[in-house]
Amino acid sequence: MSLLHPDRLFASCPQQRAIARELYEQVASLPIISPHGHTDPRWFADNRPFANASELLLQPDHYLLRMLYSQGYSMDALGITRSDGTASGADPAAVWQIFADNYHLFRGTPTRMWMDHVFAEVFDLDELLHAGNGQQFYAEINRQLATPRFLPRALFERFNIEVIATTESPLDPLASHRKLRDDPWPGRVITAFRPDPVVDPEFEGFAANIAELARISGEACDSYAGYLAALRERRAFFRRMGATSTDHGHPSAVTADLSADQCESLYQGALAGALTGPEAEQFRGQMLLEMALMSLEDGLVMQLHPGVFRNHNPQLFAEYGRDKGADIPLPGEFVKALKPLLDRVGNEPGFTLILFTLDETTYSRELAPLAGHYPCLKLGPAWWFHDSPEGMLRYRRQVTETAGFYNTVGFNDDTRAFLSIPARHDMARRIDCRFLAQLVAEHRLQMDEARELAVDLAVNLAREAYRL
Amino acid sequence: MSLLHPDRLFASCPQQRAIARELYEQVASLPIISPHGHTDPRWFADNRPFANASELLLQPDHYLLRMLYSQGYSMDALGITRSDGTASGADPAAVWQIFADNYHLFRGTPTRMWMDHVFAEVFDLDELLHAGNGQQFYAEINRQLATPRFLPRALFERFNIEVIATTESPLDPLASHRKLRDDPWPGRVITAFRPDPVVDPEFEGFAANIAELARISGEACDSYAGYLAALRERRAFFRRMGATSTDHGHPSAVTADLSADQCESLYQGALAGALTGPEAEQFRGQMLLEMALMSLEDGLVMQLHPGVFRNHNPQLFAEYGRDKGADIPLPGEFVKALKPLLDRVGNEPGFTLILFTLDETTYSRELAPLAGHYPCLKLGPAWWFHDSPEGMLRYRRQVTETAGFYNTVGFNDDTRAFLSIPARHDMARRIDCRFLAQLVAEHRLQMDEARELAVDLAVNLAREAYRL
Amino acid sequence: MSLLHPDRLFASCPQQRAIARELYEQVASLPIISPHGHTDPRWFADNRPFANASELLLQPDHYLLRMLYSQGYSMDALGITRSDGTASGADPAAVWQIFADNYHLFRGTPTRMWMDHVFAEVFDLDELLHAGNGQQFYAEINRQLATPRFLPRALFERFNIEVIATTESPLDPLASHRKLRDDPWPGRVITAFRPDPVVDPEFEGFAANIAELARISGEACDSYAGYLAALRERRAFFRRMGATSTDHGHPSAVTADLSADQCESLYQGALAGALTGPEAEQFRGQMLLEMALMSLEDGLVMQLHPGVFRNHNPQLFAEYGRDKGADIPLPGEFVKALKPLLDRVGNEPGFTLILFTLDETTYSRELAPLAGHYPCLKLGPAWWFHDSPEGMLRYRRQVTETAGFYNTVGFNDDTRAFLSIPARHDMARRIDCRFLAQLVAEHRLQMDEARELAVDLAVNLAREAYRL
Repeated sequence: MSLLHPDRLFASCPQQRAIARELYEQVASLPIISPHGHTDPRWFADNRPFANASELLLQPDHYLLRMLYSQGYSMDALGITRSDGTASGADPAAVWQIFADNYHLFRGTPTRMWMDHVFAEVFDLDELLHAGNGQQFYAEINRQLATPRFLPRALFERFNIEVIATTESPLDPLASHRKLRDDPWPGRVITAFRPDPVVDPEFEGFAANIAELARISGEACDSYAGYLAALRERRAFFRRMGATSTDHGHPSAVTADLSADQCESLYQGALAGALTGPEAEQFRGQMLLEMALMSLEDGLVMQLHPGVFRNHNPQLFAEYGRDKGADIPLPGEFVKALKPLLDRVGNEPGFTLILFTLDETTYSRELAPLAGHYPCLKLGPAWWFHDSPEGMLRYRRQVTETAGFYNTVGFNDDTRAFLSIPARHDMARRIDCRFLAQLVAEHRLQMDEARELAVDLAVNLAREAYRL
Repeated sequence: MSLLHPDRLFASCPQQRAIARELYEQVASLPIISPHGHTDPRWFADNRPFANASELLLQPDHYLLRMLYSQGYSMDALGITRSDGTASGADPAAVWQIFADNYHLFRGTPTRMWMDHVFAEVFDLDELLHAGNGQQFYAEINRQLATPRFLPRALFERFNIEVIATTESPLDPLASHRKLRDDPWPGRVITAFRPDPVVDPEFEGFAANIAELARISGEACDSYAGYLAALRERRAFFRRMGATSTDHGHPSAVTADLSADQCESLYQGALAGALTGPEAEQFRGQMLLEMALMSLEDGLVMQLHPGVFRNHNPQLFAEYGRDKGADIPLPGEFVKALKPLLDRVGNEPGFTLILFTLDETTYSRELAPLAGHYPCLKLGPAWWFHDSPEGMLRYRRQVTETAGFYNTVGFNDDTRAFLSIPARHDMARRIDCRFLAQLVAEHRLQMDEARELAVDLAVNLAREAYRL
Repeated sequence: MSLLHPDRLFASCPQQRAIARELYEQVASLPIISPHGHTDPRWFADNRPFANASELLLQPDHYLLRMLYSQGYSMDALGITRSDGTASGADPAAVWQIFADNYHLFRGTPTRMWMDHVFAEVFDLDELLHAGNGQQFYAEINRQLATPRFLPRALFERFNIEVIATTESPLDPLASHRKLRDDPWPGRVITAFRPDPVVDPEFEGFAANIAELARISGEACDSYAGYLAALRERRAFFRRMGATSTDHGHPSAVTADLSADQCESLYQGALAGALTGPEAEQFRGQMLLEMALMSLEDGLVMQLHPGVFRNHNPQLFAEYGRDKGADIPLPGEFVKALKPLLDRVGNEPGFTLILFTLDETTYSRELAPLAGHYPCLKLGPAWWFHDSPEGMLRYRRQVTETAGFYNTVGFNDDTRAFLSIPARHDMARRIDCRFLAQLVAEHRLQMDEARELAVDLAVNLAREAYRL
């Protein structure tokens, strides 16, 4: 039996399954719109072959690392290089074998379904990974990766990607995006403006980052006004490199609307590394407002991804650095936190702020009521830990009745795992079709409406919300 | 195909659907008990025809306004009169057309199902509203509204309403209720005592409200004792006008049990407009206790609807006033907040406090455990944003296992949208039958128990809890 | 028709039900592993007959007491002895009749299904309890309880219990466990170390408890070092009596990592009864760390059950004492609270901390992300109010996608209601099989994987996590 059942993720009740299947047929092969993610633009600019299975599929994937680590495998055993540059020395084939030996740990997780999809659809390996076939998988994947059909651009085309956004710091010269712009290859790879390193006073090296911002922008950043001018210059540059959005990864959704004097004073404090925790929070909050005001000018859509305790495990962080699976969600609060920003620009036509959360309690209590009222607000899809079948179903069930479908923005894959992008979009389309099928089967929606919605959720809402 | 499928809202699994259908048949045509709502008593007292479709169905409905506003329609375009009395000048037919053009926004929301029900059942318009038939709907609804069959009392009778409660301020002379009392028309329209304007020091015009309270009650309100006497007098008056309940719309569930000196001092501060925010909260908390103590004397059932950030959008509030869809829920807390009140009257036989929440996280964590222990506590139904199919299912699933069914009070429609009352009760009955059908189909409940429960949830629990 | 349908608690959709049935057949008669509970070891040590139905089944069960109390039955009427020793004088047969008269209150609650199971499977009373057969049930149960087949050890064997853990204070001499150790009866009854009375400065009689700790351990407890030595001595004693775990019932999950001076100072303050609330919280937090450090030495698995407002009803507490159904959950927080402990021992191989919660919002937001990363963390099953069909489904749906199955520890019955232990394990096994069946029917998991998981969830995970 094939690993990927054609009806997977649909409800098993035949009444709903038949409808879901019909809806899904419409959207299964629509192009992929990927407006928010973390792929490396060099892949597409340079089009060099990927290395081996472990390096491509396992080591950059914090979902995989975290689960294996939780069961006692060290980062060293998993072949992760230390922050000080010491290589682990682990044989990539042995690392892969650990993964194969422990594939049962992922039962019931989305990772398992994404990997099954990658194996079956990308590598034509249509059986379950296990201890016994681990090395066969490893060799076969490596063999295929070395062929032209698996070069980044070939995969991009095979995946039917209409547009993909990467995410860069304002300090990034966007060399790969420049190269792509001048390349005749028609694939659309755009950047997104992620200013955390230069708007968060608690970011590592903030003052140095601002010095670099001054250099790269050509604007003196010794005053708040100069700093804002530098950010404005960078946004314009990012827009020339295709950006249609900004993205903000703050610890909370706190916004602020401070006086010019307060802004100047906080900014000088930030440069001097002299802000207290609450002052840094105020500054970040003010910067969200500044970004919103600039969005009103330049039309970049704003995204806010708040509420993560980054690098919760200090020992792991010290030894191996960021993004190793030790980020933990925090309780969210939007109603009071966003008020300063909303009071100022909440009713502005032409401004869009897309909100994400890792605290599912805010879906029905805060986010859907806010997005169902404010013209500027839209809701991003179920994010990160909730980018999963049950997570997406909870999202639709808790959001839709108050905010409807049209205050949401379709799917984001949010990934650096390039090969899993089709798997992730496929999962989202299946779950959306399943949700719609339930509404139709329960006579809460007509079939022709569901057909229209399935396409809107798969492609149109993302195109419109992100101005693609 | 009819717009209203006879099996709508039941689970599509045939095993459950057949049971749900059988349970629903029992309760479909039972009378409507509406113990908590916001219809205008003048409708029933004066029995004059309703105006046009926009004015009756759209403009007073904050669910409709908020969704259209979230998608960029101005209050002006929707025909809403400004706070300063400036009419919008919008043509009601054009306003209605905006609604028809955007009916797809409501897909997946309860509003959509309520409106479909109103169109089909009340106006015999058994097709989906859309841009193309908008004006036909508008003309037909207006035509019917002008006929005797659509006078308020005729609709009241056609809807099979056994009793409906409206909600009035203690300062309201209850002229319509007096008129109804003296009218031979047998419809039972009662009032409910909503003292927010005279117990919340932060309510607009609090001091003036107290002056009016003194005047209308004939009690000097210059001392706390006099103030309590005035409230007692008003409660007695409301009871004579049929009230069986009070209702309290506080920002939180905080209660207090203060000394006589503290009460007097806070009261004088409130009159002088000199309370801080926390003091105002203390005063409101004390007033919840006072109301509870008076309920012990006079038998009025107490309702608490806490946890809403009212008028979150200041620009909209300044221009168009309250109830335009800009109220946003807040996190709830009951365990510590209610303790002063429960310590005092929690074990009193004869006292009933019905709790509502917009924070669904409190269902299983706080409300069900509290109501499953304290004799005085009962849980109100899923409220406002959660008065919806998924919202009601979450409520039953999260409340029942700890509090059972008999610590809940049946359904409240809580609406000023008179024509949707049958639609709302029908939705609640269908969802309750669906929930019971699942328990029966999964052998967690016997069928004869489910039959009894279906009737209890539809009418008996409300009759008993509200002492009707 | 039998009271206990063979397919009860499985989804009614035939596609899922057939799979659930097949999975359940594998696990239905596996032995019971009960690693966390509150049965009385004297039952098994002394093997004396249980008294009457009311005294065995009703009066010790806070789930029953709370529901009856919430509907107006006094503790007196239910035959509960007062704290001062005054017996209620209520006839046990009359108490039982109250229960029978009100059996409908439990519709939709797990209590109802547990009791049905006990009546049908343990007493062969295969009909629904109601007012009319209440006395017949009472007499028949009493008759059976007097027979040898219903002695505690006979029931233990009939229930197929492989191992059961009771819970004792460090001050308990474990007389029954000593007796059991020296008894040829092969039943495995072990203790668990619950140090709340000697690590919580706010526990009733803390200073006297420490004096007793010094006496029983033979360690001078006048210094923090002596106190830790006494605890170490008691842990060693408990290990000799079979303990494999400790258990901690703190008001929150707060942990601390204080200096030696701070520890000494807080300890002296605790002995003197001079700690403020926050200081007591700090002390408890430090003690969680100390317990974790001792676990690293002695291998006892650590359990944390935080977040309950104990004895919320002071009037009831004053008259009737603890555990009468007046404990109410509080909001939970783990991400910041556990950090001091995790910073110290979170990456230690060989340390296990099993977390429980009554705040379901923490499942997907905090607990699954934490357990899906830290090697030392595992998640306990749905607890107390959530030890119910819907509660367990929410747990699996919200935990599995992030933490997988293998960071969970199987089922705990957590009960003092001995006769309901098979009912509780049966419910958990049925719900787990139902959850797995859904994954299989939706092609998210292969059938042979589900078969393996069903057994792991029923017995293996508990055996491994608790080192049994």
